[in-house]
Amino acid sequence: MSGKKNFVIGIDYGTESVRAILADVSNGDLVATSLYQYTHGVITERLPETNIELDPDWALQHPKDYINALKRTVPKLMNESQVDPEQIIGIGIAFTGSTIIPTTNDGTPMALLDEYKEDPHAWPKLWKHHGAQEQASKLTQLAIDRFETFLDRYGGKINAEWFFPKVWEIYEESSSIYNNAERIIEASDWIVWQLTGEETRNLCAAGYKALWSKSEGFPLETFFSAMDSDLTNVIDDKMKREIIPLGEQAGELTEEAAKWMKLTPGIPVATGILDGHAAVPGASVAEPGKMAMILGTSFVHMILSSKEYRVPGMCGMVEDGVVPGLISYEAGQAGGGDHFAWFMKNAVPGEYERQARKKKIGLYKFLEQKAAQLQPAESGLVAVDWWNGNRSILVDSDLTGMMLGYSLATKPEEVYRAMLEATIFGTRKIFETFIASGVPINEIIVTGGGPAKNNLLLNILANVTRMEIKVAACPYTSALGAAMYATVAAGEVKGGYATIQDASKKMAHLDKKTFIPNNNDKKTYNRLYSEYTLLHDYFGYGHNNAMKRLKNLRMAILDKKRQ
Amino acid sequence: MSGKKNFVIGIDYGTESVRAILADVSNGDLVATSLYQYTHGVITERLPETNIELDPDWALQHPKDYINALKRTVPKLMNESQVDPEQIIGIGIAFTGSTIIPTTNDGTPMALLDEYKEDPHAWPKLWKHHGAQEQASKLTQLAIDRFETFLDRYGGKINAEWFFPKVWEIYEESSSIYNNAERIIEASDWIVWQLTGEETRNLCAAGYKALWSKSEGFPLETFFSAMDSDLTNVIDDKMKREIIPLGEQAGELTEEAAKWMKLTPGIPVATGILDGHAAVPGASVAEPGKMAMILGTSFVHMILSSKEYRVPGMCGMVEDGVVPGLISYEAGQAGGGDHFAWFMKNAVPGEYERQARKKKIGLYKFLEQKAAQLQPAESGLVAVDWWNGNRSILVDSDLTGMMLGYSLATKPEEVYRAMLEATIFGTRKIFETFIASGVPINEIIVTGGGPAKNNLLLNILANVTRMEIKVAACPYTSALGAAMYATVAAGEVKGGYATIQDASKKMAHLDKKTFIPNNNDKKTYNRLYSEYTLLHDYFGYGHNNAMKRLKNLRMAILDKKRQ
Repeated sequence: MSGKKNFVIGIDYGTESVRAILADVSNGDLVATSLYQYTHGVITERLPETNIELDPDWALQHPKDYINALKRTVPKLMNESQVDPEQIIGIGIAFTGSTIIPTTNDGTPMALLDEYKEDPHAWPKLWKHHGAQEQASKLTQLAIDRFETFLDRYGGKINAEWFFPKVWEIYEESSSIYNNAERIIEASDWIVWQLTGEETRNLCAAGYKALWSKSEGFPLETFFSAMDSDLTNVIDDKMKREIIPLGEQAGELTEEAAKWMKLTPGIPVATGILDGHAAVPGASVAEPGKMAMILGTSFVHMILSSKEYRVPGMCGMVEDGVVPGLISYEAGQAGGGDHFAWFMKNAVPGEYERQARKKKIGLYKFLEQKAAQLQPAESGLVAVDWWNGNRSILVDSDLTGMMLGYSLATKPEEVYRAMLEATIFGTRKIFETFIASGVPINEIIVTGGGPAKNNLLLNILANVTRMEIKVAACPYTSALGAAMYATVAAGEVKGGYATIQDASKKMAHLDKKTFIPNNNDKKTYNRLYSEYTLLHDYFGYGHNNAMKRLKNLRMAILDKKRQ
Repeated sequence: MSGKKNFVIGIDYGTESVRAILADVSNGDLVATSLYQYTHGVITERLPETNIELDPDWALQHPKDYINALKRTVPKLMNESQVDPEQIIGIGIAFTGSTIIPTTNDGTPMALLDEYKEDPHAWPKLWKHHGAQEQASKLTQLAIDRFETFLDRYGGKINAEWFFPKVWEIYEESSSIYNNAERIIEASDWIVWQLTGEETRNLCAAGYKALWSKSEGFPLETFFSAMDSDLTNVIDDKMKREIIPLGEQAGELTEEAAKWMKLTPGIPVATGILDGHAAVPGASVAEPGKMAMILGTSFVHMILSSKEYRVPGMCGMVEDGVVPGLISYEAGQAGGGDHFAWFMKNAVPGEYERQARKKKIGLYKFLEQKAAQLQPAESGLVAVDWWNGNRSILVDSDLTGMMLGYSLATKPEEVYRAMLEATIFGTRKIFETFIASGVPINEIIVTGGGPAKNNLLLNILANVTRMEIKVAACPYTSALGAAMYATVAAGEVKGGYATIQDASKKMAHLDKKTFIPNNNDKKTYNRLYSEYTLLHDYFGYGHNNAMKRLKNLRMAILDKKRQ
């Protein structure tokens, strides 16, 4: 290597915003970072520039925001760091998923075509779009009826957030979009396509969201034809069979894309990866027994193992899914930080806002401080954390949240703390399921957005799981992880690394501060957790299907209102 | 009668404030009204002028506030109306209950004596003081074990809010107060004592709160000695056996009390009555089959019947309890308006406050308007209305509130509407229990505070109960009712009435506007009510005692914190 340093760019497309970093390849130091908030955010009420209303379960995004993110963030990185574009050895992309985009053959999103833009199905469906619950249920039943072997890899259920339920939703609800979309593609692959001019499909999204596996490939055509005869060739018609492993090069930066970002053409671009999964090596997790918890709007739990187990209710078990050579298991909580954001927006009284302003701290910090003064069980409240349904271990997006134990003395910080606790009880339920299924958890490393910086939440996490909690040092582990895969795609020859393990050892670090459980709180939380478990099982396993009946009623009324 | 008009004063001691009225005896017209907010309000955190903390279930009041109420309100009535004090034919008092005051032989509250004022048990315990739950449970068990006949009159359970649980709580927790209190008296009788110099005990409070009945009197001494041998003579030691019927004269205004109020001594003062019960004739309910719903911080349901039935979970069935000659049944909801006040204080975001201010309407009105735009079941939420425990039909103050069906799209007005609905589901549960037990409900008349003016609540009430809802015209029916009993105490000779029925016919009126159910909402509410019933029975009848376990944990922690 010459004396010239090597740098790498990682771009992380999140739910609300995009984070780009420029990292020093030798040690992972962030030389520059940049943030872009999607202009259109998450589209839940109306299609942009129209009065076309969306169903309450819908969540779309604007493809222009994706390109604008590149134009806004990367030039800022270059400008801030004053790094020579020639020193950039690669670009890596992390993206939410399954976020799918119907496009033409040249990659143009249907949403940008005048002919289709007023059809909601033309638009990118964000991971948390929940309009395909019916299709997911039908797919699961079909797979059960056909004894499909892939089902076991996904905890026995196909989630409404995944690729094929969303595709089937388009087919069933808009033949115009389905028939005219020449391609249907994961956003993580679509953006790589925009950068390189090459349509590729990454192993991570295919494995976790599109029922693909290294040993078996996609489900058979007979499965798709059992869905509908028109769908028999959905893979060959709309997708690609060739799946590119992580840490490979997808292509090189085109002239046009280089112009967007003020870079030079020809820089290697790595295959895309899902955002939560990119955060795993970014948080220094690249060995068996280590659990990475990615705490964002939703929570993702990733654990690596050299052995294969069947874990109920997992979101997926994918060979090479994060680290080539290891099996990575994913579990998830659909409502993580989203719970807390809901609370801050909808349930904090004006008086608290005023007090927070007086103390010159944010509302999150103010509530955290107040809630931290409480002891476990002091509020008398216990919540069930299903505001956004349940991903693991029940895989049921029709479940809803609940709060029990209100008295006239109940204070907002008590409700907030109960929401934090319930979310972590959901985490413990997942951990216990892993362990009981044979996947040990020896070490927990936390990373992510706001929730990963909430000391009270991490303290609760330590006491509820009864384990020491370590924290990834880099605040942007998804972007860092994406960059790390790009260093592997570049390879040792170009100044990168041979493997993601090597990259992780050099570029990922942990905070010195850890969170350690204490005996007293551990015991109290065991009791609260047993209450959570009773409610979880009663409402989650159908002893009382109130949540589903109420949701059905609600949907029927909203349907009628819309007519 | 001469050409000079007759007037009567009614004073209603509520939970937060006192309302006094001056009414025209001939037609019930309010000539003047006056309001006094208790300076010390409801004391729940610390004893006044001390750092002595109270348990979370406690609720005390300051006896000075009671006297100040007389001094502040009555002179204002006289001044505003310019009525000649000679034209006042009587004074009637309504008071919350069981609100009890330990006093010396001359009626001085122990709380006002230096020696005792730092003992929380010296202070008036407000009806909603819930510190005597343990004693109430023991009393119930004792009565069951002894086959006490009185238990049937109270739905099979003795409530923690009543007289003897509170007395026993004093005995068990403060021998100093119990031994040195020469009298323990209902606040409704205490204030009459202050006005007349005569210690009397009214039939309404004795019958509803102190296990007394016309046919059987108080429980036998053997019952009290089974509680504790020291309590054998509690009636003769601390109370009075003589019980004065409603509409009788307790005494005449003393010189001192006349001075407080700028009145002339000698005006007849009627026996006291509980506030909810006074509202019954005040709302024109004085005949069998009519139900008066008194909607305040708590909800009270009073129905009159000429026949005697055993109704499960009722708060009481008292012969002559409201109208001499009829049996009055009382049921209650411990959390009524209190639920809504909790919501307004603890769960309305600052953004809503700003919008309300912009629209120049109060927070209650703003939320009512927003919630009224929703259809039943549109929110997907169902709540259980036990923020303040359950009075009827479960008679269990250890139950707590719950809310089920949250999603990330749940809005504050949806939570508010679910709280309104749950409270009315609790009402329907009570109505169904009455009807199933043989007590028909032919007509519903609503009266009370804020909740009685909430059109959305009354609309929900009509649709959930599937009955037309009528509304009492007078906004202060408890004060009006108290005044009406005073006209009966004065008697026809002095320009009053012979019976409370006569007074009610002349002095009480209904609004023209009524609330009528519609077919569609009725049906939807049947479905929501069935969800409420499932949860009510599951958590209320011990299938899952989560609420009690959580409350026990909470209490243990608060106890430890206080040490």
